[in-house]
Amino acid sequence: MDTQTGSVLYEAVASDVSALIHSGTLGPGDRVPSVRRLSRQKRVSISTVLQAYRLLENRGVIEARPQSGYYVRPRLRAAAEPAISDPPRGPRQVGVHDLVSRVLAAASDTRLVPLGAALPDHELMPAAKLQRMLSSVARRRPRSLTTYAVPPGRLELRRQIARLALDWGCNLTPDDVVVTHGCMEALNLCLRAVAKPGDIIALESPTYFGLLQIIESLGMRALEIPTHPRDGISLEALALACEREKVKACLVMPNVSNPLGSMMPDAAKKRLVQLLAAHGIPLIEDQVYGDLHFARAHPRAAKAYDRQGMVMLCSSFSKTLAPGFRVGWVAAGRYRAQVEKLKFVSSVGNPELLQLTIAEFLENGGYDHQLRSLRRAFSDRIGRTQHAVSGHFPAGTRVTSPSGGFVLWVELPQGADSLALYESAMREGISIAPGPMFSASDRYRNCLRLNCGCAWTPAIERAIARVGQLAQQQLGRSVARRGARPP
Amino acid sequence: MDTQTGSVLYEAVASDVSALIHSGTLGPGDRVPSVRRLSRQKRVSISTVLQAYRLLENRGVIEARPQSGYYVRPRLRAAAEPAISDPPRGPRQVGVHDLVSRVLAAASDTRLVPLGAALPDHELMPAAKLQRMLSSVARRRPRSLTTYAVPPGRLELRRQIARLALDWGCNLTPDDVVVTHGCMEALNLCLRAVAKPGDIIALESPTYFGLLQIIESLGMRALEIPTHPRDGISLEALALACEREKVKACLVMPNVSNPLGSMMPDAAKKRLVQLLAAHGIPLIEDQVYGDLHFARAHPRAAKAYDRQGMVMLCSSFSKTLAPGFRVGWVAAGRYRAQVEKLKFVSSVGNPELLQLTIAEFLENGGYDHQLRSLRRAFSDRIGRTQHAVSGHFPAGTRVTSPSGGFVLWVELPQGADSLALYESAMREGISIAPGPMFSASDRYRNCLRLNCGCAWTPAIERAIARVGQLAQQQLGRSVARRGARPP
Repeated sequence: MDTQTGSVLYEAVASDVSALIHSGTLGPGDRVPSVRRLSRQKRVSISTVLQAYRLLENRGVIEARPQSGYYVRPRLRAAAEPAISDPPRGPRQVGVHDLVSRVLAAASDTRLVPLGAALPDHELMPAAKLQRMLSSVARRRPRSLTTYAVPPGRLELRRQIARLALDWGCNLTPDDVVVTHGCMEALNLCLRAVAKPGDIIALESPTYFGLLQIIESLGMRALEIPTHPRDGISLEALALACEREKVKACLVMPNVSNPLGSMMPDAAKKRLVQLLAAHGIPLIEDQVYGDLHFARAHPRAAKAYDRQGMVMLCSSFSKTLAPGFRVGWVAAGRYRAQVEKLKFVSSVGNPELLQLTIAEFLENGGYDHQLRSLRRAFSDRIGRTQHAVSGHFPAGTRVTSPSGGFVLWVELPQGADSLALYESAMREGISIAPGPMFSASDRYRNCLRLNCGCAWTPAIERAIARVGQLAQQQLGRSVARRGARPP
Repeated sequence: MDTQTGSVLYEAVASDVSALIHSGTLGPGDRVPSVRRLSRQKRVSISTVLQAYRLLENRGVIEARPQSGYYVRPRLRAAAEPAISDPPRGPRQVGVHDLVSRVLAAASDTRLVPLGAALPDHELMPAAKLQRMLSSVARRRPRSLTTYAVPPGRLELRRQIARLALDWGCNLTPDDVVVTHGCMEALNLCLRAVAKPGDIIALESPTYFGLLQIIESLGMRALEIPTHPRDGISLEALALACEREKVKACLVMPNVSNPLGSMMPDAAKKRLVQLLAAHGIPLIEDQVYGDLHFARAHPRAAKAYDRQGMVMLCSSFSKTLAPGFRVGWVAAGRYRAQVEKLKFVSSVGNPELLQLTIAEFLENGGYDHQLRSLRRAFSDRIGRTQHAVSGHFPAGTRVTSPSGGFVLWVELPQGADSLALYESAMREGISIAPGPMFSASDRYRNCLRLNCGCAWTPAIERAIARVGQLAQQQLGRSVARRGARPP
């Protein structure tokens, strides 16, 4: 066994044990399987298990007790999860644009420590293989450079996407799929296909600011629905909202949401689809982080439960394979024709060269292997960041245990102000994403999102610690100010 | 001199003489310069001029008269130009979507003779050079594959675009430019930046159906302005419309319009900019065919006369260099920030690899040479198609003399029905673009647009002749039906 395979192997074992802990199978204080037993279960050598346990020990996930074995470390004081969100009841005009622009502008400044924007580490992408495949496609199929591409996109790619969707429990045909400029264009097209300016769109709270920006730019209104950091959107609250308000579409991330990292149980996805179908409301399913789930078994998409063609499944290869290609897609059910027309009108087709390269990679480039590496890396980075937050953020801070992806949602104690924290951090060369970006109703002032997509370095660790100190200082001042006020 | 250079040379000379005729410098019956004189003027050999004149003779553009020289052939009976258009006065909801979809679906069927969609011949694009440059960029800059691209786009490309714009009399900086997914996305962003659903957009009549589709998809209303087939939009009619209606934006193709091929005189462009600025109306300038002008000197863009930042200049490299790359751009003046935000929200950034490849081509790939080859080829194909239309279409047919590009607008005698003609032609494997696609007011029933972008082949020639015969038959029947009616 060569070193590289060995190194991948012990990390994989560590990641599996991490997953047991993340999922709650092993709780704080529980004994993890003995080295001998895990070696048997996983069919790996004793030394590989020892390496894995040492890695987890270094990350503060487990601890060795003399003559007894390894145990899951008790959660540090700050490691509790946030509670379900409580956004306001009515729909809102959205106005997050300027805040988001400032944060994004800062995020593309490479001198900053990038804890703000959610960007997957480019080092984790298979650049060399993509480059070889791309050059080969360009050589073999030069017409892909010189002919106009029109929707719905290359059949070769749509066929591969239909195959991938089988993993999600979806029976799609290539004809169901329209290729788009990334998931963002797909979401735009879906919203425009089913709703008009002024219409109400129900969505998770907190949610990805890009979705709020789309809704804002289309003149629609956002209706934020309470969302559990682990189980996703509240079906009870959504049902109530659908009765009270004229909801025109529902935009949800059932698998690996952003920023919470929640994942709806499959049964809840089914109920979500049924609930919306009963109200005649289309569901726009954003699955852009779905492939980065940490679960052992592949979760289903809500689309898998779609009997009436009312679920529009959107995703892309921007988080998992080729961020620079801007290749996304949508399977829009009964709205397919309308989406395809809007795609033509918005930007005609997608570069065929890039579509064909992705199709070849999916067919024989080892996409499964790529996904496994990403999941392992992100799970590791998430764990380290959680640990650092636990160690350095103020008492009472809560942090999510995401089901996948590479962001963490941090809830500071009441009184904290993430906008002020953002400014202080920026002055020290650190970018973060303050909570109000993720809401149309000025909620989450005491929250922030941390990007864990980058390689774990001392600089990242120091930056997280520093943000925690700044938050401590801020709360200290805040308490001091309150204390100084006359009663 | 090798054969290839020689062949390019006599075609260039023929093209120059054609341009003199197209522009009206030489009229029907005029004597063209003598062989000896032209040889002196152009500094080419006598035999090159003879080859050029023989080519023009074969194309039916000039004729030899014994002992006298070569003369511009009298126009055939059908060769008159259409008159200025006369669309209805008020704004219209647009509903061209379904017709356009049918025609476009037909256009992507490679078994058909493609006289419908306006597609530049892929054989005219520098596939081999693009492919080499692309592979080289991918090898040298692998991060362009694996990192997220965000607006406004790569500086290398924006710098080259600013240099190109100098030819159009525009002083742009790289900061003025936002890179987009083709010109279509640029036009969408501009319209969304300055107008809302329900707003009135003034534009040429007839105009490119894609613009009508954008307006339709955004819920805006189209106000069609009379347009001269040679001089472009009527400023008098536009001025009147701006006084009568609350025009929110004006979308015009001052250089090489589609479908008419008109080009506004530079003085008229200046007046257009001043007129709109006086009314506080932004001008969206679609220049996607501008680089394919047949003029000897480079025309100016309307943007060159923009003193208040109210002209939004849009173009792309899809018609001239790399149709498969989907790289367009916009210089949006005072609306730049808004356009950049909308770009992010609509589709994030553009693939950097493709941006960098185009930037390198513009810097040292011979873009000027590429443009000259295209102009020569299209001018030739336009001439041949005009000639074929003159020879085969019904008496009274009019056809444009475009200022550039690769489409012709054909006006059949009143009574002709281009929708029925489209159906008959489709049954014989020929696609055309019927006139009503180019209007929101069901005008141009007796018109059609012919794509001249393809290589001239016997199949193309036969197809044009056949469309002419079908039109003849239709008019014959139409006259017969009218004659058969009781008085």
